[in-house]
Amino acid sequence: MEEKEISRAVIKRLPRYYRYLGELLENGMERISSNELSDRMQVTASQIRQDLNNFGGFGQQGYGYNVKYLYHEIGRILGLDKTYNMIIIGSGHLGQALANYVKFEKRGFRIIGMFDNNPALKGKRVRGIEIQMIEELDSFLKEHTIHIATLTLPKAGAEEVTGHLVDGGVKAIWNFAHTDLEVPADIIVENVHLSESLMQLSYNITRHDRERE
Amino acid sequence: MEEKEISRAVIKRLPRYYRYLGELLENGMERISSNELSDRMQVTASQIRQDLNNFGGFGQQGYGYNVKYLYHEIGRILGLDKTYNMIIIGSGHLGQALANYVKFEKRGFRIIGMFDNNPALKGKRVRGIEIQMIEELDSFLKEHTIHIATLTLPKAGAEEVTGHLVDGGVKAIWNFAHTDLEVPADIIVENVHLSESLMQLSYNITRHDRERE
Repeated sequence: MEEKEISRAVIKRLPRYYRYLGELLENGMERISSNELSDRMQVTASQIRQDLNNFGGFGQQGYGYNVKYLYHEIGRILGLDKTYNMIIIGSGHLGQALANYVKFEKRGFRIIGMFDNNPALKGKRVRGIEIQMIEELDSFLKEHTIHIATLTLPKAGAEEVTGHLVDGGVKAIWNFAHTDLEVPADIIVENVHLSESLMQLSYNITRHDRERE
Repeated sequence: MEEKEISRAVIKRLPRYYRYLGELLENGMERISSNELSDRMQVTASQIRQDLNNFGGFGQQGYGYNVKYLYHEIGRILGLDKTYNMIIIGSGHLGQALANYVKFEKRGFRIIGMFDNNPALKGKRVRGIEIQMIEELDSFLKEHTIHIATLTLPKAGAEEVTGHLVDGGVKAIWNFAHTDLEVPADIIVENVHLSESLMQLSYNITRHDRERE
């Protein structure tokens, strides 16, 4: 299957399809028309067809979509049929919040290590995972295959630790630090910039206020 | 100034400009050419000029941009020259992590209330903010002007509480719950779907792996 030319916009929508289909499955729904899915998701039916056609379609004329099949296929496209070893670097409030989020584990994202540079956190356990000191990261990376490193630490620390991650063979970074990491081309970075999300909110509040004036 | 027709893509880039300009300011830089800014940000110079032209330009031929001025102007466009009263609903790990994030406060996002339905959290303080029970929300909204409600609670709770927020006059929701909230047209919702971000990461890992095969 050719998946190379798929736009970032489509990729961004796939997890949302996956979420809706998961809800339909939970509600015992076996099939759904693209119009019905369109109503629920507030996306046009033609957009849905177009998006799914990128991956070969899945719909049947006059039948619609088989919910379970489509759910599993989208899951497979998203790589959710596999298991990922994940570590969290920066075990403060946000790092611990992510470690406590059991849904990630259910989807195949297994947190197998947590790190911090704060000695007060050393040895503390979060959902059974022991927080190690950052000095132990290099040797940990030698002993384990890590698919995803989550960075929940301040900017300067994130930039410093990235080199260690790359040297240690980590290929994907989930970055919550307030910076754009410089990484080799084959390293995947997905950013979650919370401050920037909040700024988009304040932009929209401001714009609405101006329009109301 | 006409700001209505500005695309969502531009709005998404503005906080990033703001971040880079803030870093330049911290480093004592007074002016920067669009080419130099382009190099640092890995965005083409023409993209930068085009983006900023949406708001009237700011650049001067042969001089470039005045860093401080541009920083403040973008801050103003983003609504960061104002103060927002914020509440956090769902005071578990993620809610507490956000409450502990002092940078939001510095940018003008003042957290003035936290809520939860877990009696074990009642009266607990996070950075001085007392966690109240969700039953107290309606009366709290009567006594305070709340600009932003942050939802860090499970889906079902988020959907239920949204009606109370709307009735209580809240106009903007920062939604971390794994659902698309149904709100009247004048309510602004900014979503942070962490699971979906993680799925984009696993999609990209899977795609890379396929390409390497």
